[in-house]
Amino acid sequence: TTTVSRQAKKLTIGLIPADGIGKEVIPGARQVLEALPNIEDRPSFNFINLDAGFEYFQKNGTALPDVTLEIMKKECDGALFGAVSSPSHKVAGYSSPIVAMRKHLDLYANVRPVVSVTSEKDFSQKHVDILIIRENTECLYIKQERQIIDESTGLKVAWAERKISEYASRRCGKMAFEMALGRDKLRQSIPLEKRLWKGKPKVTIVHKSNVLSITDGLWRETVRGVKENDHKYDSVDMEEQLVDSMVYRLFREPHYFDVVVAPNMYGDIISDGAAALVGSLGVVPSANVGDNFVMGEPVHGSAPDIAGQNKANPIAAIRSAGLLLEHIGFHQQALCIYNAVDDVLRHGEILTPDLGGKATTQQVVDAVIKSLST
Amino acid sequence: TTTVSRQAKKLTIGLIPADGIGKEVIPGARQVLEALPNIEDRPSFNFINLDAGFEYFQKNGTALPDVTLEIMKKECDGALFGAVSSPSHKVAGYSSPIVAMRKHLDLYANVRPVVSVTSEKDFSQKHVDILIIRENTECLYIKQERQIIDESTGLKVAWAERKISEYASRRCGKMAFEMALGRDKLRQSIPLEKRLWKGKPKVTIVHKSNVLSITDGLWRETVRGVKENDHKYDSVDMEEQLVDSMVYRLFREPHYFDVVVAPNMYGDIISDGAAALVGSLGVVPSANVGDNFVMGEPVHGSAPDIAGQNKANPIAAIRSAGLLLEHIGFHQQALCIYNAVDDVLRHGEILTPDLGGKATTQQVVDAVIKSLST
Ligand SMILES: CC(C)[C@H](C(=O)O)[C@@H](O)C(=O)O
Ligand SMILES: CC(C)[C@H](C(=O)O)[C@@H](O)C(=O)O
Repeated sequence: TTTVSRQAKKLTIGLIPADGIGKEVIPGARQVLEALPNIEDRPSFNFINLDAGFEYFQKNGTALPDVTLEIMKKECDGALFGAVSSPSHKVAGYSSPIVAMRKHLDLYANVRPVVSVTSEKDFSQKHVDILIIRENTECLYIKQERQIIDESTGLKVAWAERKISEYASRRCGKMAFEMALGRDKLRQSIPLEKRLWKGKPKVTIVHKSNVLSITDGLWRETVRGVKENDHKYDSVDMEEQLVDSMVYRLFREPHYFDVVVAPNMYGDIISDGAAALVGSLGVVPSANVGDNFVMGEPVHGSAPDIAGQNKANPIAAIRSAGLLLEHIGFHQQALCIYNAVDDVLRHGEILTPDLGGKATTQQVVDAVIKSLST
Repeated sequence: TTTVSRQAKKLTIGLIPADGIGKEVIPGARQVLEALPNIEDRPSFNFINLDAGFEYFQKNGTALPDVTLEIMKKECDGALFGAVSSPSHKVAGYSSPIVAMRKHLDLYANVRPVVSVTSEKDFSQKHVDILIIRENTECLYIKQERQIIDESTGLKVAWAERKISEYASRRCGKMAFEMALGRDKLRQSIPLEKRLWKGKPKVTIVHKSNVLSITDGLWRETVRGVKENDHKYDSVDMEEQLVDSMVYRLFREPHYFDVVVAPNMYGDIISDGAAALVGSLGVVPSANVGDNFVMGEPVHGSAPDIAGQNKANPIAAIRSAGLLLEHIGFHQQALCIYNAVDDVLRHGEILTPDLGGKATTQQVVDAVIKSLST
């Protein structure tokens, strides 16, 4: 993970709200960053608003203008992305800007912590504390597709390529083992009897090599090799789950998982599934992490059904801002954000409708900001 | 769906227990078929035991002997398959026999009903009654994979092809709309106030065309076209879900779904996910359905951890035998099986450990047989 020089303490963050509720939750996350308490290492922020998205495409013919990428590369220390709408029918020339940004900025791992906050009143909720690491640059997401007409029948046949490389699998696997060690280190500061995960750190490798023996076979062997070839990871347990049984087990025994590492498409599906375990997609953040850049991104979509109504849950975006800070080296500041959010969730009084509450987006933002300073 | 001539009433069924608990649950399902009550249309059975599986591969170098396929094609009216083990490491020359059988027998739709049985004592359980139709012949399951070495780095790069054809998508889509009508017809016999699904029948199309605009785009347009081009389906609602949000929604609002139709890999993942909603993979059946052949198959795997201990749940296999009968035209007999199984589940006394009970495989089989005759 990138570390920004401590002297500077000035962070330039690109803000890309894009579509739908992205335009409500990203400004909310920005307000939280601006309200960070003046403790050790507090950076000052310079925000740059950047364009992208389906709405932008409809007006301008491109979903990701070059200038957005350029400014991120040249001027920004990191970025926060909102959400992108999916066209409800086939639209010529449209291509997902988030997939393109991950590729152009080489953000090779999508880090998705899925954590339940058990409120003091309700101990019945299942405890979930899973870190999903999703490979972020290849698999079916390379979008090499083509369509032909079968001459004998006159019917269409379409093909997509799925790419799995040793290079991408290894760096993603390495990220998983590194983060398993990191989580373990953090846990050591909690007294054993209070720790929810008492065992060794564990990495679960997701694949479907019983069908895809060559591509998922390469993924599996390569990620296994990360541990097998480096004593640094001796203390980390390693196991495997076929993607179908992974989803089953995720729902039956979520407490069974610590770090989960998956190829791009499986990771996409698993992380939405895991979100269902913690109350709402509206609380699950992610960070698209590369060696030189980090982009925070809530896992939820643009939610056109509730857009513009000031009722979108800003927590996923706020936590994504925390992940952004964590991954560019501002651990204390990130922790402040996580704790403030947990506080609001634990109190359970100021919640948006997805969590059964009646609060507005802004009220939740305000509650988090209030918690920051206490 | 194939209809066997009523005069014959003699069914030849291939039994392929294959690996692990397949060897326990398939004989259980056979016993239930043999015990069917002598009502209208009761066929007599002729069973043929057939080989396949990973264990067979280890001894004989092939996971699916030609003779198994030949006998099914030439002599059988249908088949029941158990489960196949996945090698725990890469094994040269091994290829999944179930995937091969689906292909060779052109079993183009995998029909997976996921139904909860609410016991009279426990009304808190979420009601689930979803029919998943999984395309069964293409997508990544065509297994066209290759590996190359990147000359500039010396590292491996692997590729898999994903195929989506108009032909396969259309027949699978048609199956979904037909079955939506069939379910609706069955519901009409239930008084409105007792019906759990009170609306029009509905087909949900799963895809990820926001990323795979060409392959999933073709899938989506083709399945949509099935309804749009045939007034027969005017009474069926149609909607779409992106695969990631499908998994999320499945867990949050399972009652929202009636019939769900999905490309092969998404269908694999979704059906295991749905199984988590109804207590256990051990109760979820499937039928691999083609125009000329049907093969029943429990959705669970070979479960090596509990194999040989007489504690595998035989219900998925028994229900799969019911689906087999239903799809070759013996509706009354199929209904007998479903009702007997529901009875045992509803009483909740004779259950295997996966459902929290202490009964053996054979005790559950016996309980179902006892229920058949009452
Ligand atoms: C919008 C879409 C392209 C994206 C993805 O599939 O990666 C989203 O679902 C996500 O998880 O970030
Ligand atoms: C064993 C495996 C090849 C198979 C599949 O992926 O289709 C299984 O998971 C299933 O769902 O029937």
